[in-house]
Amino acid sequence: MHLGKVIGKVVATRKEEALTGERLLIVQPMGKDLNKLGEPLIACDGTMSAGEGDIVYFVLGREAALALSKPFSPVDAAIVGIVDEVSPEE
Amino acid sequence: MHLGKVIGKVVATRKEEALTGERLLIVQPMGKDLNKLGEPLIACDGTMSAGEGDIVYFVLGREAALALSKPFSPVDAAIVGIVDEVSPEE
Amino acid sequence: MHLGKVIGKVVATRKEEALTGERLLIVQPMGKDLNKLGEPLIACDGTMSAGEGDIVYFVLGREAALALSKPFSPVDAAIVGIVDEVSPEE
Amino acid sequence: MHLGKVIGKVVATRKEEALTGERLLIVQPMGKDLNKLGEPLIACDGTMSAGEGDIVYFVLGREAALALSKPFSPVDAAIVGIVDEVSPEE
Amino acid sequence: MHLGKVIGKVVATRKEEALTGERLLIVQPMGKDLNKLGEPLIACDGTMSAGEGDIVYFVLGREAALALSKPFSPVDAAIVGIVDEVSPEE
Repeated sequence: MHLGKVIGKVVATRKEEALTGERLLIVQPMGKDLNKLGEPLIACDGTMSAGEGDIVYFVLGREAALALSKPFSPVDAAIVGIVDEVSPEE
Repeated sequence: MHLGKVIGKVVATRKEEALTGERLLIVQPMGKDLNKLGEPLIACDGTMSAGEGDIVYFVLGREAALALSKPFSPVDAAIVGIVDEVSPEE
Repeated sequence: MHLGKVIGKVVATRKEEALTGERLLIVQPMGKDLNKLGEPLIACDGTMSAGEGDIVYFVLGREAALALSKPFSPVDAAIVGIVDEVSPEE
Repeated sequence: MHLGKVIGKVVATRKEEALTGERLLIVQPMGKDLNKLGEPLIACDGTMSAGEGDIVYFVLGREAALALSKPFSPVDAAIVGIVDEVSPEE
Repeated sequence: MHLGKVIGKVVATRKEEALTGERLLIVQPMGKDLNKLGEPLIACDGTMSAGEGDIVYFVLGREAALALSKPFSPVDAAIVGIVDEVSPEE
């Protein structure tokens, strides 16, 4: 899984039927020190109700759809938790 | 999922039987500010009827085939929505 | 899916039983202007009978095996079409 | 699979129900000489009880969930072994 | 699939039960001219009995586990053939 921050959303009227009702958030991936890491992507919110500015962790790939109510949705990124604390110890 | 723009199409007479009738579009991936991001790829159109110039979002990987009428098609990228608006708030 | 050009083949006597009879081609990935893009990889030919020099498109990941006669083969890249024409319009 | 070192953990109260009770560790990927390799990621511990400082190997993608008690969890990285010794011979 | 060379092994006493008895080899990915390509990774040997120094080809992702006796193993790379000859023709 990866750390990220919710920085916006995508509005789409025409979309796959399986995606109806799913919130599409723009997530900026982040490193363990909450530094930016690469380019933002679009993730479904799953059941987390994440809001803008939240630090979250998300999954990529086929397993993302497992976080949705319809596990066979064509989805490849989903937020699966909201982070309280990251404690890197190096 | 990823943002992208439809910039062309691929014509192929000889192809996997499961892909017969599927439109193959060339999609330029884009960042949240609709900036170009990396190299174009080929995505199936699914049921979206996207046209050239459309801003779309697409899925990658096994889950792409879930957007097609034949979910076991050998496909790894599919357009699943047409974007009305992107609202990044940083 | 990705564009590529068949540039050679791999010969292997000892291989997974499920791969017996599958042709293994070396494919150079290409961009939309048929420019080289990254490193060549090995793809199964599926049912396409692609020859050296052919411009093809291929799938990556779990879905590649869906192009073979044995869909549970340990395969992660397969050619699924031979390209007649690419028409990028930017 | 990939080599890595456990360097911290993520605390999240709100998370997917399927992830309840799973430990989320921050893992720094490493090369064969135990050199750092790219950015840390978040991996489930599976059944390994890895501790901070442990050298581990982990899987990525859909197959990560196969290491958990709930194989349909939305998880894309899991620790599946603790390394005693790496013997690169070049 | 990808070309690689076996350059070592990983010894792990504590590991996922499904991985008991599987050999874990360190594989250096290679290009078509047998040049080094990126960082070594850990692959299961499947049924190939590859030895150090062997040129092999391997699969990545969910499909790697299909090369093992237990197809639901948490494994993301497996050797599926030993290469006799690579014939790139450009």
